[in-house]
Amino acid sequence: MEPRGVSVSAVLPAGGSGERLGGTTPKQFCAVQGRPLVSYAVRAMERISWISDIIVVVSSENIATMKTIIEKYGHKRVTVVEGGVTRHRSIFNGLKVFAEKEFSSHLLQKPEVVIIHDAVRPFVEEDILSKVVMAAKEHGAAGAIRPLVSTVIASAADGCLDHSLERARYRASEMPQAFLFDVIYEAYQQCTDYDLDYGTECLHLALKYCKTNAKLVEGTTDLWKVTYKRDLYAAESIIKDNLSQEVCVITDAKETAAQVGFLLSESLKSQIKVEAVSISQSKCDSHLQNILSGQCYNFVCVNVHLDTSENNSFSIGVEELTSIKKFARETKKKNILVYGLLIQYKAWGCKRPPDVILFMSLIKRKYPEEIGPNRLRNRKLTDSNYK
Amino acid sequence: MEPRGVSVSAVLPAGGSGERLGGTTPKQFCAVQGRPLVSYAVRAMERISWISDIIVVVSSENIATMKTIIEKYGHKRVTVVEGGVTRHRSIFNGLKVFAEKEFSSHLLQKPEVVIIHDAVRPFVEEDILSKVVMAAKEHGAAGAIRPLVSTVIASAADGCLDHSLERARYRASEMPQAFLFDVIYEAYQQCTDYDLDYGTECLHLALKYCKTNAKLVEGTTDLWKVTYKRDLYAAESIIKDNLSQEVCVITDAKETAAQVGFLLSESLKSQIKVEAVSISQSKCDSHLQNILSGQCYNFVCVNVHLDTSENNSFSIGVEELTSIKKFARETKKKNILVYGLLIQYKAWGCKRPPDVILFMSLIKRKYPEEIGPNRLRNRKLTDSNYK
Ligand SMILES: [Mg+2]
Ligand SMILES: [Mg+2]
Repeated sequence: MEPRGVSVSAVLPAGGSGERLGGTTPKQFCAVQGRPLVSYAVRAMERISWISDIIVVVSSENIATMKTIIEKYGHKRVTVVEGGVTRHRSIFNGLKVFAEKEFSSHLLQKPEVVIIHDAVRPFVEEDILSKVVMAAKEHGAAGAIRPLVSTVIASAADGCLDHSLERARYRASEMPQAFLFDVIYEAYQQCTDYDLDYGTECLHLALKYCKTNAKLVEGTTDLWKVTYKRDLYAAESIIKDNLSQEVCVITDAKETAAQVGFLLSESLKSQIKVEAVSISQSKCDSHLQNILSGQCYNFVCVNVHLDTSENNSFSIGVEELTSIKKFARETKKKNILVYGLLIQYKAWGCKRPPDVILFMSLIKRKYPEEIGPNRLRNRKLTDSNYK
Repeated sequence: MEPRGVSVSAVLPAGGSGERLGGTTPKQFCAVQGRPLVSYAVRAMERISWISDIIVVVSSENIATMKTIIEKYGHKRVTVVEGGVTRHRSIFNGLKVFAEKEFSSHLLQKPEVVIIHDAVRPFVEEDILSKVVMAAKEHGAAGAIRPLVSTVIASAADGCLDHSLERARYRASEMPQAFLFDVIYEAYQQCTDYDLDYGTECLHLALKYCKTNAKLVEGTTDLWKVTYKRDLYAAESIIKDNLSQEVCVITDAKETAAQVGFLLSESLKSQIKVEAVSISQSKCDSHLQNILSGQCYNFVCVNVHLDTSENNSFSIGVEELTSIKKFARETKKKNILVYGLLIQYKAWGCKRPPDVILFMSLIKRKYPEEIGPNRLRNRKLTDSNYK
């Protein structure tokens, strides 16, 4: 998957004004599940080890906001650059950081290939990034495309139909795109003010000024751009769905707890990606912060407790509960939800696998934030959501 | 708003296979808030009094399903027609019901203008329908358009960029479209098998076979087509939002209750569309069914009860509660949610307006189905959700 023998960095223009959303907050800063959209796009880049630097270009009034976001979500390898008044001018500014000493006090290493991706396309995967990078290395430029959803038509001056385009011959140009750095930088240096002010398509500049015909790469449906309010709704639902695709089973290091955790993770493996971690509860904070910092947002933690008391009531130590609650509040900022699974050791035994169906229904719910202890009070297993 | 001096009917092709959704259920039959998408589109047409007949064209295997949907949601003025193997053949079949005696045992009155709209565009408003109908009456054909979201490009045979289109010159062709019946029917009769099998654009047929240049009408953002799974998510969120845009305050006919209901509806008017109805509780079922049958889905009913007991506890008669619960179950099938607002008469007095902020937060919640009595147990006003 990793493109071999090529250095890669990325530029994310995030200077748009979001007029089409009808709101005052630019769409890249709109909160989706409590986190700004731009943070998802940065996260998507950051997860990929072979991307060296991530340049986020924002308008001057949003530089402080962007720096706060980077701090809050612990983003790494990100440089914030001030944008221009148009999309092309912003991208050009982002590229200059690699090329012009006077533009940046800290000149970054010029990459062989630069990815250009939108801050408002949060779901980009390594596969398509790798494909456009390899195609750009070979062809000089490459971009993701998608089939047209609607027929495209040309109107005449009188507001009537002039002609309609044959849908099969055309494609929608999407992001990510990738370029040999020297090709796209040359194109920006050569192009006119008219291009910089009214153009939007980088592939077009590479063709016009460097005679580089970009390779077109079929992208997946999740590359779409958040443009309207309905797209924010859709992004939110997708993120909620993703949240329930991966589980990390965290147990106390005590033998009985670790054993239950092992059985649980084995049972879940047929349905979901599972990682099992056993650590001492007292070391929860520092250990888990390390484990989780490298992970993506679609991650659910499970805390398994054992109650070995003789009677039939559940119990959990106040100190332990406080520690988990604190941890859950921390991870929630990163869209990681912590569920507590309190298993009555005596009634349950420790050979029988936990009730996976109940568990899956808990973590597959589309609205995890709605889950409270009351909801599941009468279930066989008692679950608590500590957020 | 009503187009004057013109008879109008509508054809809704609903024969698509929904391949792009990645599921087996065609998208028009996917449930959104528990109700099939096609039912929203039919409802949107049905609400408009000047549309005479609504022809829904479905594939033969879905005729029974469609008839069940019509029955279940009480749709009126709808005729189900068997589709062809392509979109154009399905629309043609829908039009034949108005024109060919041998095709239908019950020949419908031929309209002067026919609207063509997709079953997977659930949010069409009277305004745009009226505009395309009036434009079709004048120009012979008309269709809604939207700005392009992405740049459109043409690829060469080698999979590389050939050229990109200048975005400002082109538009996306959307639905609804409208035609003089004789124009579009003539176009379908004239067109080739190739057109019927591979074409998708009715405006193109009207131009090619009847020399009719359709008038293009700027549509609103909500005309988009449900194509991918994310569009279903978006539709669901929009429907949930709409649900909390209108309120009907229903009170008992007793003077005190009606008085409280009046104050409540007056207080709410600054924030939401309100209709106030006072009826005797015993006649609740039949009266309300009549009131609500003409309404669209985005409707919330409020039931105001007065508790005049001397002590500080709330109370409501079991019989009354049972009757409301039954009613709420019925209306929920139509996506109308009934909330009960139990007001302690003595403590509250009857001059002070009810707590509108609390009330708005209740009905503006995006997930009304999650509201249970427990959630609000400790509030000043007691609300119950009877679903
Ligand atoms: Mg571009
Ligand atoms: Mg058409």
